[in-house]
Amino acid sequence: MRIGRAARSADATPRLVAVAPEGEGLVDLVTADVALSTRRGATHEAATRVAEAKFPGSLTTALDRGAGVLLEEASAALASFDERALIPLEEAVLLPPADPRVLRCCSAFEEHARNGFSRLGQSVPATFYEFPPYYKGSPASLIGHRAPVRWPGYTQSMDYELEFALVMGSRSTNLHPEDAASHIFGVTVMNDFSARDTQSLEAGQGLGPCKAKDFATALGPWITTLDELDIHDLPMIARVNGVEWSRGSSSTMTWLPEELVAYLAYGEELLPGDVIASGTVGNGCGLELGKELAPGDVVELEIGGIGTLTNQIGQPETSGWRPVPRRQFAGGTQ
Amino acid sequence: MRIGRAARSADATPRLVAVAPEGEGLVDLVTADVALSTRRGATHEAATRVAEAKFPGSLTTALDRGAGVLLEEASAALASFDERALIPLEEAVLLPPADPRVLRCCSAFEEHARNGFSRLGQSVPATFYEFPPYYKGSPASLIGHRAPVRWPGYTQSMDYELEFALVMGSRSTNLHPEDAASHIFGVTVMNDFSARDTQSLEAGQGLGPCKAKDFATALGPWITTLDELDIHDLPMIARVNGVEWSRGSSSTMTWLPEELVAYLAYGEELLPGDVIASGTVGNGCGLELGKELAPGDVVELEIGGIGTLTNQIGQPETSGWRPVPRRQFAGGTQ
Repeated sequence: MRIGRAARSADATPRLVAVAPEGEGLVDLVTADVALSTRRGATHEAATRVAEAKFPGSLTTALDRGAGVLLEEASAALASFDERALIPLEEAVLLPPADPRVLRCCSAFEEHARNGFSRLGQSVPATFYEFPPYYKGSPASLIGHRAPVRWPGYTQSMDYELEFALVMGSRSTNLHPEDAASHIFGVTVMNDFSARDTQSLEAGQGLGPCKAKDFATALGPWITTLDELDIHDLPMIARVNGVEWSRGSSSTMTWLPEELVAYLAYGEELLPGDVIASGTVGNGCGLELGKELAPGDVVELEIGGIGTLTNQIGQPETSGWRPVPRRQFAGGTQ
Repeated sequence: MRIGRAARSADATPRLVAVAPEGEGLVDLVTADVALSTRRGATHEAATRVAEAKFPGSLTTALDRGAGVLLEEASAALASFDERALIPLEEAVLLPPADPRVLRCCSAFEEHARNGFSRLGQSVPATFYEFPPYYKGSPASLIGHRAPVRWPGYTQSMDYELEFALVMGSRSTNLHPEDAASHIFGVTVMNDFSARDTQSLEAGQGLGPCKAKDFATALGPWITTLDELDIHDLPMIARVNGVEWSRGSSSTMTWLPEELVAYLAYGEELLPGDVIASGTVGNGCGLELGKELAPGDVVELEIGGIGTLTNQIGQPETSGWRPVPRRQFAGGTQ
C-alpha cells in the first residue's frame, strides 16, 4: 500500500490518504471509511466521528494505534471507496507523508562520504567504518511533494541530496539487525536540501549541521509499505530542470537499513512514525559533482517502487538577524 | 504562573497542571475547569468535554491555541480550584513540562566552552564567537523531575549538564533580538545528561552529538512564565548526592537568550512549545571538574525562580547491538 498525507486545498484539514489501486488519484481514508460505515447503517455523524479517530491527519498518531491496525482499516476503506473519496493527484496539496517525533539522518554510503570529504581535502574519518554516522534533522522543516523550498538569507550555496527514508511502524529499543525489519512501516523519498557554505561554518563548531539543513527537508510523495519493495536494491535518480544529475542504488550502502535501525535503537527508543534517512547515495548531490542549485531550479528525486518527489527552489530571503560577533573573554588562557 | 505536566499515577493520562498559589501542590487544570463550569450550570459531561479540549495533556497542543489564551483560561481555573483538583506534589508523577516538536541545545557560555575544549587539549573554535553554536536533541528522550536516567550499554562515562531552557509560546521566523522576548512562554530547568566517551567518538564523525545525548534529557519540574523571572540573572546550582558541584548564573552568557532565539529563528520557523536550551553554565558539568557520575547518583539542579530538578542515575544496560566495523572500500583513493 502507498500511504501519505494530503489536503484538498491549502487551507483544508490534512488527511491520511492512500494511492488508489489503479493510480487514479489519492483516496481520502476518512471519506472512504464514512461511506463504508453509512452503507452498513451508521449515521453520517457517527460514521465521521469514528473515521476521524481511525484516520487522524497525523501518521504518527495513526501509527500509535498499531501499524497492523492502520493497514487493515485502510485496506477495508480502500476496497470499496467511491468517487467522493477520490482526490485527483493534480489537485491534491501533498504534505510530508510522515510527521515524526524524531528525524534521524544517517550517512550510510561510503562513496558519498569519500566524495564529500575529498572536496574538503580530507579523507573519510576512521569512525565512519566503526559505527553509522548520523545527525538529527528538524521535523518542523519537513515539506511535501511540490512544496517550494525556502532559501534562507544566510546562504549562497544551495544543494540537494538524493536519499531514501525509512518510516518506523512500532516502538523499539536495543534491537538486533535481524529484528529490525518487523519495526519498519515503509519507505519514502527524501531530499535533504543543504546550505553548503553554512555547513562548512557549522562543521567548525563541532555540533553538527543545523542551519545548513533545517530550512527545508522534502519527504514524499508518499510511503510505500515495506512488503512492496526490496530496500536493498532501490534504484535512485535525481534530475535538475529535467536533466539527470545523479543515479545510484541502495545496493551500495555500507551500513544496511536494518543495521541503521538497530544502531539507532541502541540505548534509546525509536517511536512509531519516526523517520530514518539513508544518507546521500554516491554522487547523489551537487557537492560531489561540483555543481550548485539556483533559485527557481526544479529538483526531482525518483526512487523505483516509490515515486518521484519534486520541489522547486525559492528566491533568497533578505530578512533575519545576523549575529554580531563577540569578543573573546579577556581573561581567557586558551 | 508555573505550568507543568503531571499524572496522578504512572498509568494515568497526562494532564496540564499549575503550581497552586501557596505551593500546596499541583492543580489539575481539567478538574479545576470542570468544577468552575459545573458551578455555572454545565453538566459534568459537557464541562469535561470542553475542559479536556482547553487543557490537553500536551503543552504544545495547548500553546497552538495561543499562549495568552492558555494563561487566561488557566488563571480562571486556578482562581477557584477545590481539593479534588489538587495533586499533592509527593504523589504526582511529573512529566517533562514541555513536549516540543524541536529541541535545540545551544552552547552560549564561553566559560563552559573554554573548560571543555581545554580538557581535550584544544582552544575554543573562532566560530564560537561568530554565531551561537547549537545542536538538536531528541524530544523522545525527554524525562521529567524524579524520572530515572537510562544508562545505555555503550557508555562508561556519565555526566550531567546544568542548563536552563526557554519554552517558546508562539510561532516566529526571521526575528530580531528585541522582538524575541514576546515569543518566549517561560523557562525551565534542564539536565542534558551526556555520555562523554561516546561524545568524543561522535565528534570524530563531524555530525554532532547523538548517542552521547539521546538516552535521557531531563526537563522540569515545571515552567515559570517569563513575567516572573529575570532570565539575565538566574542563579544556577548543581548538587550530586547532596553535595554542591556547580554554581553559576545566566548573567555570564556570551550569547543572550534573546540572541539565541533570534538566531535560531533565522531562515526557519520556531513553533509554539519548542524548547531552546542555554547550554551548560561555566563549571556546570563533571567534565569541567574532572568528575564523573556513578550508577545510583542523585543529581539535583536548582535554578532560582523555577525550582529543583532531581533525577537518579540508573544501572548500566547490557543489551543492544554494537556495530560490526566495516572494511574500507578497496577501491578507495583517499
